[in-house]
Amino acid sequence: MTARLPVGPATLVGPGDDAAVVSAGDGRVVATTDLLVDGQHFRRDWSTPYDVGRKAAAQNLADVAAMGAVPTALLIGLATPPDLPAFWAERFADGLSDECAVVECGVVGGDVVRSELLVISVTALGDLQGRAPVLRSGARAGDVVAVAGRLGWSAAGLAALRKGFRTPRAVVDAHRRPQPPYAAGPVAAKAGATALIDVSDGLVADLGHIAKASGVVISIARASLAVSDRVAEVASALGVDPLDWVLGGGEDHALAGCFPSSDVVPQGWRVIGEVGEIGEDDGGRVLVDGRAYAGGGFDHFG
Amino acid sequence: MTARLPVGPATLVGPGDDAAVVSAGDGRVVATTDLLVDGQHFRRDWSTPYDVGRKAAAQNLADVAAMGAVPTALLIGLATPPDLPAFWAERFADGLSDECAVVECGVVGGDVVRSELLVISVTALGDLQGRAPVLRSGARAGDVVAVAGRLGWSAAGLAALRKGFRTPRAVVDAHRRPQPPYAAGPVAAKAGATALIDVSDGLVADLGHIAKASGVVISIARASLAVSDRVAEVASALGVDPLDWVLGGGEDHALAGCFPSSDVVPQGWRVIGEVGEIGEDDGGRVLVDGRAYAGGGFDHFG
Repeated sequence: MTARLPVGPATLVGPGDDAAVVSAGDGRVVATTDLLVDGQHFRRDWSTPYDVGRKAAAQNLADVAAMGAVPTALLIGLATPPDLPAFWAERFADGLSDECAVVECGVVGGDVVRSELLVISVTALGDLQGRAPVLRSGARAGDVVAVAGRLGWSAAGLAALRKGFRTPRAVVDAHRRPQPPYAAGPVAAKAGATALIDVSDGLVADLGHIAKASGVVISIARASLAVSDRVAEVASALGVDPLDWVLGGGEDHALAGCFPSSDVVPQGWRVIGEVGEIGEDDGGRVLVDGRAYAGGGFDHFG
Repeated sequence: MTARLPVGPATLVGPGDDAAVVSAGDGRVVATTDLLVDGQHFRRDWSTPYDVGRKAAAQNLADVAAMGAVPTALLIGLATPPDLPAFWAERFADGLSDECAVVECGVVGGDVVRSELLVISVTALGDLQGRAPVLRSGARAGDVVAVAGRLGWSAAGLAALRKGFRTPRAVVDAHRRPQPPYAAGPVAAKAGATALIDVSDGLVADLGHIAKASGVVISIARASLAVSDRVAEVASALGVDPLDWVLGGGEDHALAGCFPSSDVVPQGWRVIGEVGEIGEDDGGRVLVDGRAYAGGGFDHFG
């Protein structure tokens, strides 16, 4: 596998020693880790090993971008049944490699162990390039709320897969291989974003994390959430409201953030709402068209 | 769990955001990751959750030390059955916390997901403090070979547990909670070590990794491998040669390394052999008293 994995410009010592060494130019490193469990976070009958590799990398690289940082390296753990076909591991590595190529980061290390259940761990490192990290806790009343990237595509694809379909290809592929807007994270940080988050649990749920951490109320408008035609078509065919996917679906790994004014919102971001003062007894609330949203995000133990 | 985990001096942003931020003083970060699988790398009937936490941290912190670096942070992933008792997770966190306290490093992030099988991922970060990393590939003919830390203790404890014993406590505890000589890594680097490795697969196997990476032959002498009385007693009781545990047993997380001369070998390290020129067709060989060692280290898929 190691031979298939990319070396990045920040890789000083790559795989094969007790540990890797990665450059951390400004004297700090951003670090995040995730686990993906077979049957829980991916299904081998729905996704190719290549897709799983791309998705595993993407969801962690998106977390780095959501700090306003640029990814520099991944470390991968693979707990695998001994009968996993060699091609599966190879194509998984190819998927990791291609997703890393999008952001020019290397895979610097890993661990392969035996397990009855296929479990993948991914750790991503990143470089803030001298900027302050953009936290969830920095939103202030008067800020505008904006998003970059797709919303509802992955949920539409998952709904199609659950119905036994393998099409429409655009949304099914969006579920298998999210396309996070990596560059939008550092761009937002440079533009003065006050808060940033990776949309992985669902837009309302993740804005709720900003609202709670910042002690504010976030109000968004349905009319501002342009539903793409592809997503609308699938929703129509399945008889559901596409806005539920846009508001409640995770896994597209869009970025959501707050900015001190609409004037500074950079290209690639679209304004969807505003940040307000917290009232009594409503900490962390997210309002959609002035009302609490009934749908929910993803609960890992739901 | 987060509330039980330590904040370290290098923690700039701890758990709770999309990613953590850790200081990397000299513009580089050391990074390593491992997976531990229930029933494979630990047994819940042999080890308490506290022990598993200490061991999970220790084996990764030892990898950082084996680069000549000082650990700065851990990231933890926990894939857990929903019926894992809360006390298990809490005591696991306490074990992580206490092992981190030994080296003053923080737990900066993690992920908890649902899984049918308990799997733990650990990523450790470290600081080289301006020194070059000490790789496996730097040993040269004429170097001396030395070790720091315990050898054979964990294997003796495992042998006792496999026979159904819970004693002698000293070796059983050594298996449950290794005590890597963390400080010996940076000390060796400062002393000019040419190669370093964490002994996790077994002394001969891991010296073999140095020999192979460096293109040398390593010769060690049985007489130099002082077998502790505790280990010898267990071996005698079980009718085995304790040197097999010293030469082939892993998981004590001792450090092994090479130094340009015995004069520079620092306190806490003991010389056990020497590095020789490679001959024809004997790449990577490790000789014990002049002969190839028949025992082996740990093979994850054996």
